Amino acid sequence: MEFPWPDVGTPLSDVLTPMPVIDEDRLAKNIARAQDYMTSHDLPFRPHIKTHKIPEVARQQVEAGAIGINCQKVSEAEVFAEAGFDDILITYNILGPARLARLVALNERVTTLRVVADSAVSIEGLSKAVGQGRPLRVLVECDTGAGRCGVQGAEAAVALAQDIAAAPGLRFDGLMTYPAIGGAAAVEAFLQDAMARLAAVGLDCPVRSNGGSPDLYAAHLVPSATEHRAGTYVYNDRAMLRAGECRAEDMAMEILATVVSRPTPDRAVLDSGSKALTSDLLGFEDYGTIPALPGARIVSLSEEHAVVDLTDCGADRPGVGTQLRIVPNHTCVVSNLFDRMVFHRGGIVTRVLPVAARGTVW
Amino acid sequence: MEFPWPDVGTPLSDVLTPMPVIDEDRLAKNIARAQDYMTSHDLPFRPHIKTHKIPEVARQQVEAGAIGINCQKVSEAEVFAEAGFDDILITYNILGPARLARLVALNERVTTLRVVADSAVSIEGLSKAVGQGRPLRVLVECDTGAGRCGVQGAEAAVALAQDIAAAPGLRFDGLMTYPAIGGAAAVEAFLQDAMARLAAVGLDCPVRSNGGSPDLYAAHLVPSATEHRAGTYVYNDRAMLRAGECRAEDMAMEILATVVSRPTPDRAVLDSGSKALTSDLLGFEDYGTIPALPGARIVSLSEEHAVVDLTDCGADRPGVGTQLRIVPNHTCVVSNLFDRMVFHRGGIVTRVLPVAARGTVW
Repeated sequence: MEFPWPDVGTPLSDVLTPMPVIDEDRLAKNIARAQDYMTSHDLPFRPHIKTHKIPEVARQQVEAGAIGINCQKVSEAEVFAEAGFDDILITYNILGPARLARLVALNERVTTLRVVADSAVSIEGLSKAVGQGRPLRVLVECDTGAGRCGVQGAEAAVALAQDIAAAPGLRFDGLMTYPAIGGAAAVEAFLQDAMARLAAVGLDCPVRSNGGSPDLYAAHLVPSATEHRAGTYVYNDRAMLRAGECRAEDMAMEILATVVSRPTPDRAVLDSGSKALTSDLLGFEDYGTIPALPGARIVSLSEEHAVVDLTDCGADRPGVGTQLRIVPNHTCVVSNLFDRMVFHRGGIVTRVLPVAARGTVW
Repeated sequence: MEFPWPDVGTPLSDVLTPMPVIDEDRLAKNIARAQDYMTSHDLPFRPHIKTHKIPEVARQQVEAGAIGINCQKVSEAEVFAEAGFDDILITYNILGPARLARLVALNERVTTLRVVADSAVSIEGLSKAVGQGRPLRVLVECDTGAGRCGVQGAEAAVALAQDIAAAPGLRFDGLMTYPAIGGAAAVEAFLQDAMARLAAVGLDCPVRSNGGSPDLYAAHLVPSATEHRAGTYVYNDRAMLRAGECRAEDMAMEILATVVSRPTPDRAVLDSGSKALTSDLLGFEDYGTIPALPGARIVSLSEEHAVVDLTDCGADRPGVGTQLRIVPNHTCVVSNLFDRMVFHRGGIVTRVLPVAARGTVW
């Protein structure tokens, strides 16, 4: 049976919970604020679509001034290419014949497609897959302190850049990094070092792609970057608030939940379990905040239940059936759980959009 | 674009990762072992479908001897009713007119449908929604120590049972509890107390539904229960292994992942991020185990990356492109992330089934 998604005009109080909802005004403000900042620093902006996975929202970002989009997987990029986006950076090592074939097919139809690599294995796979096809633009992924993927140091970056430049079908197009939080100075130092070394071996480095939402408003501290990537800023969440990148009134995503049980005076149970909030803690000790209930702590989740400790709340405690709004620790992962996303303005549903790239892990 | 799900006969080495896969032989053994145990103790068994969300797997459970199924939400129950299941227990407080209307519609077509309640608000809603329709069987949910939903104590259970018995359209059908781990003695003591009190006020209590996978093989220690519910046993996971309820060779679900980066000698990065493994820790400090890589620790996840610390591994470390298998901390939440589930026997794909109840949080 089809889920009864709400019609446009429905008040949120009538929406079945648990349900993430997006505040249109806050969304528009978040998009404008980040773009204005980037524009004021002459820094091209490339939003990461992982946060929303919705082409219509990406279109709002591009219409505001973004130069293109950032995807993490080929399957995500396929969804957005299908929706007409023509400047896509895939910040992932693409491996295996099936996925490489789809990447190459994408490269034939997207005006500007770039991908990253951080190993000889990746480069060999990309080169073989391209064959006689349209040359593929490749950036070297560099680890500047985040400890995830990426070559270690500028010397290794140059060696890999030379491999790319020498590989049939590939074009070395620059450098990409996903930095550590607070890592602006390290990124700038790295880029300057790597660019000098690349110049010394005669390689152009037109693209220097920096990223991250937690340091979004420090992007100008990396003048050597030619673009900045960020995702979470579009909705914001508790982690962005902690990072000082937004205010409480900038939370475009909230999760509607209902109190389904009040077993004791100090305990409420909500219907927003890990299938709605996810278990992402991101360093927090509980699973989101409830702005309308100061002192309440979401202390544990099972799939369909959130247990809330009300010990530190006042006397006005919600009864069974009360609808509450939760600010999640991490919005991006919530988007991956729902087939559609409900948007509203002032509590009235404005649009219900398919989360077109939900589940695209390939 | 449609994801290229593997054809029957495909070797797992050719399956795109990240991808959870189910070992048919282990699945069959897990189903048989639990059912044999229940049968040997004359204890009716009601598997919780949340772990797999797949009607075909539930059919295997019922064909093995299960009396019916357990769902958590109305939308889950709808999927399984559509697939022909005619004995369904929904262990959730159902609230709100839209959901109650769907519950009542379900009650008109499912031979034996039961639901639980732990508050006067829930009972009032159920009674109003049934109206002149077919009477709805309701169990009182009891908190016997797990600290989630449920009335506190036998006296409160009896009071609510009387409310149900007196409510138009409802029939008091018994008690239900989701116990604390290791809580068999507490459940038995509670049931004996509550049954005596119910008898004293003239109320029959035909159903006493106990549950939980971590204590599956202690179900016979609750002789007053008339049925046991459990979900995770069907696939098993790292938490079940820790609980001593299965062996390493009973893991029916593993997640195929590929090494996408080897930035340093001690670090591997896999493509199985939180969109494949989820962030569920369940008390563990890392995000699953890699049986083929003793000593490896999945120390952090982002959406599309798993960072693996290889410090304690031997010299034989996987290179970029190597496919690995991961045992997740918690299988149920993984099932909620994928639209289809790939089954295999001996590494050859046998079936690819829709996860029909994925995303049914309502």
